[in-house]
Amino acid sequence: MALEKINQVNDIKNIPPEEYEILAAEIREFLVEKISQTGGHLASNLGVVELTMALHLCFDFPKDKVVWDVGHQSYTHKLLTGRKAGFDELRKYGGMSGFPKRKESDCDCFDTGHSSTSVSAGIGLVAARDLLGGDEHVISVIGDGALTGGMAYEALNNASRLKKNFIIVLNDNNMSIAENVGGMSEYLNGLRTNEAYTSFKTNLEHSLHKIPGGIHVANQLKKTKSGIKQLFIPGMLFENMGITYLGPVDGHDMEKLLDVFQKAKRVKGSVLVHILTKKGKGYAPAERHPARFHGAEPFEIETGVPKSKRKKANYQDVFSTCMVKLGQRNDKVVAITAAMPDGTGLKRFKNMYPDRFFDVGIAEEHAVTFAAGLAAGGARPIFAVYSSFLQRAYDQVLHDVCIQNLPVVFAIDRAGLVGSDGETHQGIFDLSYLSSIPNMQIMAPKNKWELSDMLKFAVEFEGPIALRYPRGEAYDGLKEFRRPIIYGKSEVIYEEEDIALLAVGSMVKTAEQVRKNLKAAGYSCTLVNGRFVKPIDTDVLDELAKEHKLLVTMEENVRSGGYGEKVRDYVQEKELPVKVLNIAIPDEYVEHGNVSLLYEEVGIDAESVTKRVIGKYITVK
Amino acid sequence: MALEKINQVNDIKNIPPEEYEILAAEIREFLVEKISQTGGHLASNLGVVELTMALHLCFDFPKDKVVWDVGHQSYTHKLLTGRKAGFDELRKYGGMSGFPKRKESDCDCFDTGHSSTSVSAGIGLVAARDLLGGDEHVISVIGDGALTGGMAYEALNNASRLKKNFIIVLNDNNMSIAENVGGMSEYLNGLRTNEAYTSFKTNLEHSLHKIPGGIHVANQLKKTKSGIKQLFIPGMLFENMGITYLGPVDGHDMEKLLDVFQKAKRVKGSVLVHILTKKGKGYAPAERHPARFHGAEPFEIETGVPKSKRKKANYQDVFSTCMVKLGQRNDKVVAITAAMPDGTGLKRFKNMYPDRFFDVGIAEEHAVTFAAGLAAGGARPIFAVYSSFLQRAYDQVLHDVCIQNLPVVFAIDRAGLVGSDGETHQGIFDLSYLSSIPNMQIMAPKNKWELSDMLKFAVEFEGPIALRYPRGEAYDGLKEFRRPIIYGKSEVIYEEEDIALLAVGSMVKTAEQVRKNLKAAGYSCTLVNGRFVKPIDTDVLDELAKEHKLLVTMEENVRSGGYGEKVRDYVQEKELPVKVLNIAIPDEYVEHGNVSLLYEEVGIDAESVTKRVIGKYITVK
Repeated sequence: MALEKINQVNDIKNIPPEEYEILAAEIREFLVEKISQTGGHLASNLGVVELTMALHLCFDFPKDKVVWDVGHQSYTHKLLTGRKAGFDELRKYGGMSGFPKRKESDCDCFDTGHSSTSVSAGIGLVAARDLLGGDEHVISVIGDGALTGGMAYEALNNASRLKKNFIIVLNDNNMSIAENVGGMSEYLNGLRTNEAYTSFKTNLEHSLHKIPGGIHVANQLKKTKSGIKQLFIPGMLFENMGITYLGPVDGHDMEKLLDVFQKAKRVKGSVLVHILTKKGKGYAPAERHPARFHGAEPFEIETGVPKSKRKKANYQDVFSTCMVKLGQRNDKVVAITAAMPDGTGLKRFKNMYPDRFFDVGIAEEHAVTFAAGLAAGGARPIFAVYSSFLQRAYDQVLHDVCIQNLPVVFAIDRAGLVGSDGETHQGIFDLSYLSSIPNMQIMAPKNKWELSDMLKFAVEFEGPIALRYPRGEAYDGLKEFRRPIIYGKSEVIYEEEDIALLAVGSMVKTAEQVRKNLKAAGYSCTLVNGRFVKPIDTDVLDELAKEHKLLVTMEENVRSGGYGEKVRDYVQEKELPVKVLNIAIPDEYVEHGNVSLLYEEVGIDAESVTKRVIGKYITVK
Repeated sequence: MALEKINQVNDIKNIPPEEYEILAAEIREFLVEKISQTGGHLASNLGVVELTMALHLCFDFPKDKVVWDVGHQSYTHKLLTGRKAGFDELRKYGGMSGFPKRKESDCDCFDTGHSSTSVSAGIGLVAARDLLGGDEHVISVIGDGALTGGMAYEALNNASRLKKNFIIVLNDNNMSIAENVGGMSEYLNGLRTNEAYTSFKTNLEHSLHKIPGGIHVANQLKKTKSGIKQLFIPGMLFENMGITYLGPVDGHDMEKLLDVFQKAKRVKGSVLVHILTKKGKGYAPAERHPARFHGAEPFEIETGVPKSKRKKANYQDVFSTCMVKLGQRNDKVVAITAAMPDGTGLKRFKNMYPDRFFDVGIAEEHAVTFAAGLAAGGARPIFAVYSSFLQRAYDQVLHDVCIQNLPVVFAIDRAGLVGSDGETHQGIFDLSYLSSIPNMQIMAPKNKWELSDMLKFAVEFEGPIALRYPRGEAYDGLKEFRRPIIYGKSEVIYEEEDIALLAVGSMVKTAEQVRKNLKAAGYSCTLVNGRFVKPIDTDVLDELAKEHKLLVTMEENVRSGGYGEKVRDYVQEKELPVKVLNIAIPDEYVEHGNVSLLYEEVGIDAESVTKRVIGKYITVK
């Protein structure tokens, strides 16, 4: 058992080369075993086992520094740096993160989560090293999917100027989470598969050799101008940007990996090492279905089948069905995703209306301005995007969509706490960052039927409009309350007096439970579904103020700039005779863990809210 | 006079070819004449006179659509589309915008302002056209500077998949606002100047011809694999991304321009036309100093010298001096700009500490994560950036800097209303979008000395910290109030009772005037300089609530999520016995115009505030 000998960083250096293959197999077995129980990112981690081993053999961590782009492929790195035991509590509350964390190990030098950041961070570490007189190596490991993100290109554009060693490892598995798209992908595909490219020099020489006088020509050409010299080098695109290119190299061949990393260490300036890996490598179900094993729920190892069957529809399923209907009804409806056709539920739309479906790659900025262009041209674009990823396109929403008041629909998925992915993925800022943008409207559905109704409303709306809904199971309660969506109007669900709960989106379900608790404790309580976060329904506030002593706002978003502050602002401005209590997420990042636990932790679960409401009500009644 | 004949779109088509040169000269004369009076973007517009004329001769506007990246180079386009008279009121309140505006003309199909958006918008217009069965041409005109922005690359990466006509015009003047940087710039420079590149095919053939048997080889090579075929094409980088490349073409030669645009119209799919232009072309002072004539104040035509001499120092001058001192005192201090070394005032730092200065190009996203890497590596990065451009890096601030609580200083320039650039450039959202980010601290100085003190404070601070200050003249009043900066604490300037003005940053000056007005009207009035927008000074609020009936918050930022809402939130939560009035910018975009006029328009000038304070005070006292 080679893996038994790995208990801390650099232990791998004591493993004899003939055992590398065994170690790789044991690591894969370990990962499949653990992730089948805890869930987590599997396919990407199985792809980089040898790549990570080779890095640990060639470099000296923690002195040397490696930045993992996105970071969910860092499991082998965690294993090789003394965190084997952490896998029992992987992605659980209080347990090990599924991403690199500086606070977890000094071998994690930079936290990641979102795509395409590693080269920028790496250049920063290189610049700091040079400033402070260090001599450590800095390595950024970036996938080909992440290369479709613009900031990676901004970074490559800057990498060319570095005078000293900086190593970019391109982990090329020909996939982002879904299939890769775009010109860069085509280009890499050329490097990967076209013989004329993969060993370009040999090939060109070979061609010349077949032609009379060709050998002489080849030799002459090599001596001529630098422009021509480049023809003999594959990876011209990178070379053209001033970055030395090495590869491509088989990412599952340890000998070749060790060789190319040693070469890379000797290059002055920036070097890009092109490694070809296979997502899901070594575990058949993951090799066959890499997207399904991207972020996996616990599964049966034998079959790869998830252990718990889903019973209820997800919000994503509801969105999927609704999009198909909208596409049928209105042939101007166009759907856009940034590399998440599966996650967002757009796959059926894609299959039915391929001409009206656009996967732009991991490129949220482009996606939003592309949508603005579509809308300016008369189409009805719907951009389905995770809340935390839309942060990338804040300026494009503000500058390209909203100034021109263009009818773009933002279907904001994974809004609120997402759970085991942690800080980087929690969708708890969108209500705030969108609210301050003029011309924007924001809605949040209370249940699955309302998601459908709001989406229909949004597609008809003549201006920018967002609707946000959570990850996972769609709430199917409160079915009987389905009044038509009216612009800027909330929905009164239960009307009583004294205490009024105003909840938005996912919090309506919680508020329903809070109301039950309050009623059980003898309080009278109104429940209002806010529906619109912007504009807020001021009429209902005027009304509620008459018969209630306390308004309680409830939202799954940070407090600053959110729904509650807007309500409070209106109540105080208008000097309405009622007190306001805001229930929201405090001004802190929220770690990974089970969502119900996180609700308790941040104090927005039904029990905590009930206590706070009663506590406050006692002071005001 | 050829220009006299141009009164509406397509009039240029009646100008005989022999008069093109005359027309170009007259347009330049007109632009210099008008801009010397109104101020505006000069150098970039002088560079694209022929390019714009050629577009108008080859295409059919408004049926065909042109998107101007950034948009400040659209003056000739405005001239050729019936807006000659608008130049008298260029960039004035109520007058013609300095950028394309859909509401101004149906020849402006997409509003722009920030860099690197045009290709994304263009692809959107193309997709909408194909969906709706149109056959118009879509043209995006993008500068080489804008190509350093990541979203342009995201868009190019997507352009390759378009099946139908899309024309990208690369307006290559070898500059952004300042000199261009990075690998892409080097690459374009290669295309531009290297003969082996500019007529690559000819050159390679020429080389081959000199070698015995070479002609035969050349002919053979052309017939071989596609990979090799590419060697004969310049612009391989674009070709590699699946975009046809035409050029480079002299951008001041009408015949060549007309020829290449006619060719471009016939290309299927995406085509990039590489045009070489000279910034400032035809006006000697602008040719010599293109950066100075980028955005020009009114000037003397003879000499190019600005008409009004500045008397007082700008905030940028103060920042400049302070940065030099900080650089001297602490050799870990590093300065970063995204293509604005002059505008931000970093030029002196650059000259004194070239190794600690980084111009990353128009690449705000990279800039922020690069800064995060620097901070994680032990340096003290200061990113000087315009408020509206930092919007581009919202996610990087939230995700790369603040989750890790890294000590990055954001020196946010052009915060507040900027004036004649209008909607796209107003820096009125930063307090909101930064406030909702955990771990972030935000300050705003009241005058030039406080900018210096706050910058010193920020560089010592162990976490992310922003300070925001306006464009232009630094306030030099209130010199006698210079108490040390204490974390989270405001500064009480005048202490009285009844009404308390709590102003932040630029609004302290206004508040001083409001206080004078109030005193003159017989009111008693306290003035507090808020200093910290996050965290707010809750102690001072507790104190003020005791002796005051009305707290008035004043900020040059939108109200939603800003300083006032935070103060109001605390006051209401704590149930302090005091009313709050928030003075902020309403939830609307603010157009171009003189800043003092804009203040009045949005109601944050001293007179308007005084009236509102008195109005409110009467109701509460």
